[in-house]
Amino acid sequence: MKDVPEQYRQCGRQAMQWLDQLARHSEAPGMLTRTYLTPVHRAAAEQLTDWMLQAGMTVRRDHAGNVIGRYEAAAGSEDAPAIVTGSHFDSVRNAGKYDGNLGILLPLACIAEWNRQGRRFAFPLEVIGFSEEEGVRFKATLLGSRAIAGTFDQGVLGNVDSEGVSMREAMQAAGFDAGRIAEAAWPRSAVAAFVEVHIEQGPLLLNEDLPVGVVTAISGATRFMAEVRGLAGHAGTVPMHMRRDAAMAAAEIGLFIERRCSVKPGLVGTMGILEVANGAANVVPGNAAFSIDIRAEQDGDRLSAVSDVVAEIERIAARRQVEIALRKTHEASSVPCAPRLQDGLAQAIGAAGWPVRHLPSGAGHDAMAIAAIADVAMLFVRCGNGGISHHPDETMTEFDAAVAAQVFSSFVEHYQP
Amino acid sequence: MKDVPEQYRQCGRQAMQWLDQLARHSEAPGMLTRTYLTPVHRAAAEQLTDWMLQAGMTVRRDHAGNVIGRYEAAAGSEDAPAIVTGSHFDSVRNAGKYDGNLGILLPLACIAEWNRQGRRFAFPLEVIGFSEEEGVRFKATLLGSRAIAGTFDQGVLGNVDSEGVSMREAMQAAGFDAGRIAEAAWPRSAVAAFVEVHIEQGPLLLNEDLPVGVVTAISGATRFMAEVRGLAGHAGTVPMHMRRDAAMAAAEIGLFIERRCSVKPGLVGTMGILEVANGAANVVPGNAAFSIDIRAEQDGDRLSAVSDVVAEIERIAARRQVEIALRKTHEASSVPCAPRLQDGLAQAIGAAGWPVRHLPSGAGHDAMAIAAIADVAMLFVRCGNGGISHHPDETMTEFDAAVAAQVFSSFVEHYQP
Repeated sequence: MKDVPEQYRQCGRQAMQWLDQLARHSEAPGMLTRTYLTPVHRAAAEQLTDWMLQAGMTVRRDHAGNVIGRYEAAAGSEDAPAIVTGSHFDSVRNAGKYDGNLGILLPLACIAEWNRQGRRFAFPLEVIGFSEEEGVRFKATLLGSRAIAGTFDQGVLGNVDSEGVSMREAMQAAGFDAGRIAEAAWPRSAVAAFVEVHIEQGPLLLNEDLPVGVVTAISGATRFMAEVRGLAGHAGTVPMHMRRDAAMAAAEIGLFIERRCSVKPGLVGTMGILEVANGAANVVPGNAAFSIDIRAEQDGDRLSAVSDVVAEIERIAARRQVEIALRKTHEASSVPCAPRLQDGLAQAIGAAGWPVRHLPSGAGHDAMAIAAIADVAMLFVRCGNGGISHHPDETMTEFDAAVAAQVFSSFVEHYQP
Repeated sequence: MKDVPEQYRQCGRQAMQWLDQLARHSEAPGMLTRTYLTPVHRAAAEQLTDWMLQAGMTVRRDHAGNVIGRYEAAAGSEDAPAIVTGSHFDSVRNAGKYDGNLGILLPLACIAEWNRQGRRFAFPLEVIGFSEEEGVRFKATLLGSRAIAGTFDQGVLGNVDSEGVSMREAMQAAGFDAGRIAEAAWPRSAVAAFVEVHIEQGPLLLNEDLPVGVVTAISGATRFMAEVRGLAGHAGTVPMHMRRDAAMAAAEIGLFIERRCSVKPGLVGTMGILEVANGAANVVPGNAAFSIDIRAEQDGDRLSAVSDVVAEIERIAARRQVEIALRKTHEASSVPCAPRLQDGLAQAIGAAGWPVRHLPSGAGHDAMAIAAIADVAMLFVRCGNGGISHHPDETMTEFDAAVAAQVFSSFVEHYQP
């Protein structure tokens, strides 16, 4: 354990307290669920606004529901491009309380400390609470950050939630105007850099006993949904060599994906959905459905794995005499983090006395969207409990929050525009 | 195509007509679903009774709901043990119309013909319409044949259907008395032999272009339900080598079962249930559940396969660091068909001009239960459409029904007590 100066310990403590408090704004008791434009989502936005005001910031909302706090630059530098940070305050269902929220509240704790010290910089600081990233309520992700990046897809305004309420209607009910989302877009000239602090949501830092790490890139991803059609049969009467078992075709594909994606660091492949509808112990499965999710830091690694997987699916389908319909549902290229910002974070980590670990982000983040208008970087904070996330067991320590505060503060204090 | 005498063609035609007519007694329009003690089940029993009476038989019911027709022996032989045949008239949901019903109606067509000819034998013939075999409504199988074999498990009387009605209550409502099921049992001395005619429910005869075959044994079976507990994780952030993916553990086990059970004819292994509850494309599965069904003509083959599968499951669980809870849900030894009765059927097939194909029955049948009180045998009839069964596409031809009638008639006519 390195020594962390008391000032940052105080920031870490403050961030953890706020995280606990913010987690109380949940749609369901006993867990954290906070989806876009619900009453608890609004209450969380109001809470963030209060804390930003207390930290000496001015606060504004935009028509996508983002909460934006500005910590003004030193006198004379008000027109300089801002260093922008932040993350999302919506959540998945039964979520962890650090995912997203940490990236708003940890920088906010640092700013509160600078404000106490009366310290200002040669650039403004902006903290954005992005209103929506997870895509739970309307099956569309990154709504807040896309609005700010000017890449909001108007087509999703008609998406409806499970109650049949459209996104457009939900915005109106919450006091926003879907017709004015374009006004939420920021010009490139307003942003000097975007740096997002986020819990890792994986086990790498935990396993290497490191509190923080520098993200190299947000992995690109390709997703498919697949349906297998074989032939149902009686489990007792159809000899093995005459079967066209849809489930075993899916199983073989799953294991191929696992094997193929194990050959390169930074490459991962997952069959997260695997369903044999109406399966019965005494019936050879005639149908199966599954998902494929392949991600890599390097687009070439991903595309090569996807191509091998698709080819193997065709071979397996032919050999097993099953039909497999493959539908691509998502494709996104890798988003690299700016080397100059990675260097700035690395220097801050080194100055705090820690080894510098570079790692890719396999998960998507708001920084992906903001990359359209600015250089981006991410600081990952160690995730406890084996790296579990999107789950109430997601956890991190106050110590790691303190280290993250030290690194973030140092990054800002030494930033050269 | 061998020539089949017109007399048997007429029997085949009659059986197929009756099968079409009986199939109209269904709980749901447009499909065949007929479960134990429902109104349509009662209507089917009344229809069977009518046809039995028209064929010159006397008819009785027992308290398990079985419909029993007796075609009396020639004068003076009334006390001889009977040749007993029959099968079940309940069905699975959305069933084929031949499974079960054929084994009642095909012998009935033969008896109707003998009755027209005024032909009697040195033994009575009994045709049993077993009231319940599939186990759909009360999750307990072979209810009718077990009652007759004296092996009915009183414990299942408390089982309830999906509406909460207990089997005991359903019996009472249908006019039967659960307290008198023991009276349904037949003494061993009453039965000279039990021969069940049944559609194959598999593709072997179809693939070898044969209308009928002689069953060697009803395969023994072992079934398990298994639950895998791994660790859920983010599909983008958990490196491949650190995963504890429950679905991939199940997939690997499924493929091992498939491989292990492919080494011996008569051995089959199936993972009919394979479920990843609440699976999502971007989540590494933390839980999975699956079934195992292993059957073999030879008990030794089955037990050896089960032992290898269980050992492999332990190896896979250890290597993948997942927990697998295995629960045995069923175990039954193989039921051999009596060689003397197999020979009788084989001679009848040969006399009709067909090659004799011996094959095991991978599916369970009423003959399994009746084996407790009598020598049993089974005549399989070719199943069309690739051997599909428990499905509306289950089919067979009138020609094959005629051959089966010829073989069954010849067997009875040449039977030596």
